[in-house]
Amino acid sequence: MRIKIKEAADFLRTRDNFYILTHQSPDGDTIGSGFGLCFALRKLGKNANVLCSDDFPKRYNFMMEGYEPMKFTPETIVAVDVADAKLLGSKLSGYGDYVDLCIDHHVSNTEYAQRLLLYPDAAAACEVMYSLLTEMEIPLDKKIAECLYTGIATDTGCFKYGNTTRLCHMIAAKLMEQGINFEWINREMFDIKSRARLLVEQYISSSMEFYLDDRCAIAAVTLETIEETGLAQEEFEGIAGMSVQVEGVMVGAILKEKEPGKFKISVRSASDVDVSAICRKLGGGGHKKAAGCTLEGKVDEVKMQLLSAIAPALGMDLWLV
Amino acid sequence: MRIKIKEAADFLRTRDNFYILTHQSPDGDTIGSGFGLCFALRKLGKNANVLCSDDFPKRYNFMMEGYEPMKFTPETIVAVDVADAKLLGSKLSGYGDYVDLCIDHHVSNTEYAQRLLLYPDAAAACEVMYSLLTEMEIPLDKKIAECLYTGIATDTGCFKYGNTTRLCHMIAAKLMEQGINFEWINREMFDIKSRARLLVEQYISSSMEFYLDDRCAIAAVTLETIEETGLAQEEFEGIAGMSVQVEGVMVGAILKEKEPGKFKISVRSASDVDVSAICRKLGGGGHKKAAGCTLEGKVDEVKMQLLSAIAPALGMDLWLV
Repeated sequence: MRIKIKEAADFLRTRDNFYILTHQSPDGDTIGSGFGLCFALRKLGKNANVLCSDDFPKRYNFMMEGYEPMKFTPETIVAVDVADAKLLGSKLSGYGDYVDLCIDHHVSNTEYAQRLLLYPDAAAACEVMYSLLTEMEIPLDKKIAECLYTGIATDTGCFKYGNTTRLCHMIAAKLMEQGINFEWINREMFDIKSRARLLVEQYISSSMEFYLDDRCAIAAVTLETIEETGLAQEEFEGIAGMSVQVEGVMVGAILKEKEPGKFKISVRSASDVDVSAICRKLGGGGHKKAAGCTLEGKVDEVKMQLLSAIAPALGMDLWLV
Repeated sequence: MRIKIKEAADFLRTRDNFYILTHQSPDGDTIGSGFGLCFALRKLGKNANVLCSDDFPKRYNFMMEGYEPMKFTPETIVAVDVADAKLLGSKLSGYGDYVDLCIDHHVSNTEYAQRLLLYPDAAAACEVMYSLLTEMEIPLDKKIAECLYTGIATDTGCFKYGNTTRLCHMIAAKLMEQGINFEWINREMFDIKSRARLLVEQYISSSMEFYLDDRCAIAAVTLETIEETGLAQEEFEGIAGMSVQVEGVMVGAILKEKEPGKFKISVRSASDVDVSAICRKLGGGGHKKAAGCTLEGKVDEVKMQLLSAIAPALGMDLWLV
């Protein structure tokens, strides 16, 4: 059942003993909205814990400073930023059918919860959470403000992406009143990388090839490369964006060999070219600006298959370039 | 003479035939505030042109769409984002003594202009300009909004740096009402790089060495390297920031050989370490988080000189690590 913000506020006010569930592979927004809500409920004298199927990545630890799990029997289950019960992950899957309230911003929310507070136009669950805490008249403090800021910043690429709303900026201005160290947060979230990540970026950057009058960039990572270089598998997250960072490139792709001869292809658009249409032709799918598919063959064959699909989308003939 | 916003607004309202001067090596803020003001004055039916000693870099062209220089005899000289008359550059230096109004945010402003509207706490001249246009009751439009947004975004690293003010966010929210394509602007300003820049970044990244328990990172570029690799000199701007991007690094430095055996050293801090103190010891200076000096010798000798100054600042003994 879809509910409005006032109903969600009333619900939280009248309940106690909260388990707040975050999604698996937790990111800044699910952690920020989870701990933001937890600290707010505790300020009201209520019992609240935050749960996750996976460990929280270390770089988000600052949001949990001063947090200790409490001992109580849970009575109210709230999920934050969790679009689908499946995304609760293995350890929390048992709660899937018993979520009393879901607070979310994903238009794809499957409405698995008893009550759903959904703002599909919000950039982040933390944007919804800010409105909810305001409705509940819970005064902000620095801790809560840092949680909500982090969620909004990470989901919008620091106010850079097209999903950024006017409200994101207005909330950021309000959160800054609490003296949050947004400079430090942004540096940790956006600028700092591990040496292992640096190596992956170096590899992608130096192996980038340019095709179709330099309007298409492709980098490939084979199993052989991984073995030779020792590149860390877990450091490839979000790497596809690198394929469209060079001036003039309209479509970019990263080819990553998953099993011998089987490549996961991530395609990105930095133009009006709809890469989901390109990937659908190749048996995949996705969004206009970010899509993917799986292709089989030797790395050069796979590149050719992909380029044959990209060329017409750029209005070009592969064999004439 | 320092003036307040109302006086600046009255001054602009009563004058006509404006030359708006931007600073040499123009950036997003001087161009954004210059063209923002120019379009606003033209909306009032006044004559206004924007001037610069240097060509405007191509990537800022979108701010000048629809702009053509007008023919008129200048009567009012306004400088925007120009902290010192010297920064007008060679072609505009003749105007240095005749600036009627300077609109700026640099605390270092030399007060060379007849009237100075200075907000030293503002992140960008465009932040001041927004307040001024609001005071003048000039309705925003998409063109003006794109100019002001770009100046604020570029001077704050897209709301990421510590100079970002609450007002920056509040203004961004207002500017977004004009339907500006901030996603495209941010991509152009922050994500896109030339292939020549990519090569420079690759070189810096792959030649980075880690010292002092990995708390210090140093990359060096010699004249020999430049010759061998053909790295483009003009693509090194702002590269020093790369030296502190790796997790755990507290102080980073880029060494660039300017003449044989003479290195320009750019030092950055990602911690409480005051790098201006380090550089002062070596005959240089700067700010706490960004400083520099010049050192002479072979590249390895220069590294040692630098590390000898950095080690104690990190509370370490160079010879024990």
